[in-house]
Amino acid sequence: MSDDARFGLARTVSLPGPLALDGGARLSPVEIAYETYGTLNADGSNAILICHALTGDHHVASTHPITGKPGWWTRMVGAGKPIDPARHFIICSNVLGSCLGSSGPASKDPGGAPYAMRFPVITIRDMVRAQAMLVDHLGIGTLQAVVGGSMGGMQVLEWAATYPDRVRSAVVIASAARHSAQNIAFHEVGRQAIMADPQWRGGDYYADGKAPTAGLAVARMAAHITYLSEAGLTEKFGRRLQKRDAKSFGFDADFQIESYLRHQGISFVDRFDANSYLYITRAMDYFDLAEEHGGLLANAFKGTNTRFCMVSFDTDWLYPTSESRAVVHALNAAGAAVSFVELSSPFGHDAFLLDVPELNRVVDGFLRAGE
Amino acid sequence: MSDDARFGLARTVSLPGPLALDGGARLSPVEIAYETYGTLNADGSNAILICHALTGDHHVASTHPITGKPGWWTRMVGAGKPIDPARHFIICSNVLGSCLGSSGPASKDPGGAPYAMRFPVITIRDMVRAQAMLVDHLGIGTLQAVVGGSMGGMQVLEWAATYPDRVRSAVVIASAARHSAQNIAFHEVGRQAIMADPQWRGGDYYADGKAPTAGLAVARMAAHITYLSEAGLTEKFGRRLQKRDAKSFGFDADFQIESYLRHQGISFVDRFDANSYLYITRAMDYFDLAEEHGGLLANAFKGTNTRFCMVSFDTDWLYPTSESRAVVHALNAAGAAVSFVELSSPFGHDAFLLDVPELNRVVDGFLRAGE
Repeated sequence: MSDDARFGLARTVSLPGPLALDGGARLSPVEIAYETYGTLNADGSNAILICHALTGDHHVASTHPITGKPGWWTRMVGAGKPIDPARHFIICSNVLGSCLGSSGPASKDPGGAPYAMRFPVITIRDMVRAQAMLVDHLGIGTLQAVVGGSMGGMQVLEWAATYPDRVRSAVVIASAARHSAQNIAFHEVGRQAIMADPQWRGGDYYADGKAPTAGLAVARMAAHITYLSEAGLTEKFGRRLQKRDAKSFGFDADFQIESYLRHQGISFVDRFDANSYLYITRAMDYFDLAEEHGGLLANAFKGTNTRFCMVSFDTDWLYPTSESRAVVHALNAAGAAVSFVELSSPFGHDAFLLDVPELNRVVDGFLRAGE
Repeated sequence: MSDDARFGLARTVSLPGPLALDGGARLSPVEIAYETYGTLNADGSNAILICHALTGDHHVASTHPITGKPGWWTRMVGAGKPIDPARHFIICSNVLGSCLGSSGPASKDPGGAPYAMRFPVITIRDMVRAQAMLVDHLGIGTLQAVVGGSMGGMQVLEWAATYPDRVRSAVVIASAARHSAQNIAFHEVGRQAIMADPQWRGGDYYADGKAPTAGLAVARMAAHITYLSEAGLTEKFGRRLQKRDAKSFGFDADFQIESYLRHQGISFVDRFDANSYLYITRAMDYFDLAEEHGGLLANAFKGTNTRFCMVSFDTDWLYPTSESRAVVHALNAAGAAVSFVELSSPFGHDAFLLDVPELNRVVDGFLRAGE
């Protein structure tokens, strides 16, 4: 039962599999941690699957078990929100490779030892296959919608491409159909920071609990910059000093932005596993939906009956509007039904998680039109 | 004498000082490594000072003593180039805080031990004061021009503000009059990567030669991404694989961009000191020319007779055109003579170092008009 049984229902299921992975390995069993909200209606037509981002989890609208913070998408999911347990049966599962209950490098292998770096490298499509196993397990054939931002949006695109008959509506927010060289570069910096930490030890750090926290914190700091816009950083922090009147002429966190970033790094390591960070960033870097379909993105959506909603943000430089537009062009070429909007927001990539009322209106209108 | 006596003349001078630093400390002696090219003319009117960037050095147009590579600005300095030893007496000195011969954390303190983190925190203005001491030492009153890109451009602005009567022309390329929150954030990631390396040991790593190379490499990788444009990375690397036909489903450098970044990190640590990286990034983060002049940038240039040339690049997101424009507005408000151009280049911030013929034409024309 959930810690937050008033609302969500958090469970873990162990499915026998095997799950055949893109890398050639077969994973068995497949543990999937997930949370549901609301009730499946009689004809099973109101199920919405929400896909989370790199460091997200299944506690989409419930208290996080480690941090005690509210769910990561309470702005989108809840009573009176676009995705509403009163109308929808809402499913969110922790992705394969993560560390909040689903199978990942911190999980035990069949021999009882942590997989660590012996866990197979996975792809976005593997994550989606695991989700499909969960949806089967829940007895649901077709999803009313699959919805996600950032890496969640990649999963939505992959769902639509891999299981077109099981997705009536797809909502892809602040995402892309492939990782750019710059995206890969930032992830590689994070991975190198983790692997350079002597506590990483080739990934075998679970026994004594001394994880590569310093490296993971640096990885998070670098990534966090990419989630924010330059203008947003200037507005929020500028060159303001942190709890002091003058520069210290030392290496303490003189500036608020330094203090903020250090906090982001330090607090992240309490809730996330460094090896999971390696695996999930790798899956994102490997993602190239066109490549999976003969090099032509439109092929991924040929003959689809899924209706698509694409949203980008004007200050998002990690997954800029041009990436969404490329997907829209491919959908157009495939003759798919697609609505596309670039929203204005000062928040950069993080806008998909933050208070952008226009996003809620767009998603609400799109979902209702398909109901 | 220089290793490259055919052309440049590299020397180190020890000036007694003391140099009064912005942080309150007094540095004595002040070692300055520098290189000169060409001959000072009879009336001492043809001296051009070149200011280098964060990881640059005084070997502006001579072979680097460690890497064996050509000087870092042979595109701008040399026979037939805008800055030409046949016409100019060219001076370039290693900045204070660096590690190529000028006083910095790797230097010996008066007691004979390396300063390490006991070296005083310095500012861009301190670097410029040290350069002024060198120019005095060389018997030069007024410089025909001070020229620099990136951090070099900050020094040029500081020269014009601090010694207006000693700078006839100022050339500021791909730079800014202050460091933004995003600039500070990226530097802070680099500093944290260095300090997280157990080999950093509070900066006291000189005795056994085991430097925090892993942390410094990560810092360099993160910084390097900011020097390039997203479009440039896509054109140069895209998602192309490195010496393989298919993804490895592992954590080797599958993509060319990964391999390239790793190489950038690894090769950097051979030529640069981690503590110097901390000190110089700190100086850059502290830089805010307006703050030094009552909060109004125009005050920095009040009554100036210096003529200015400002150049930015359209794909430079580290020091975007808006930062140059802010300086131009301040110069206009101060009634200064200024020419400003935004050049088009695919190379991002690094354009100031690369083959951009238009940049050479702009600098050449500007310098000749002032001769």
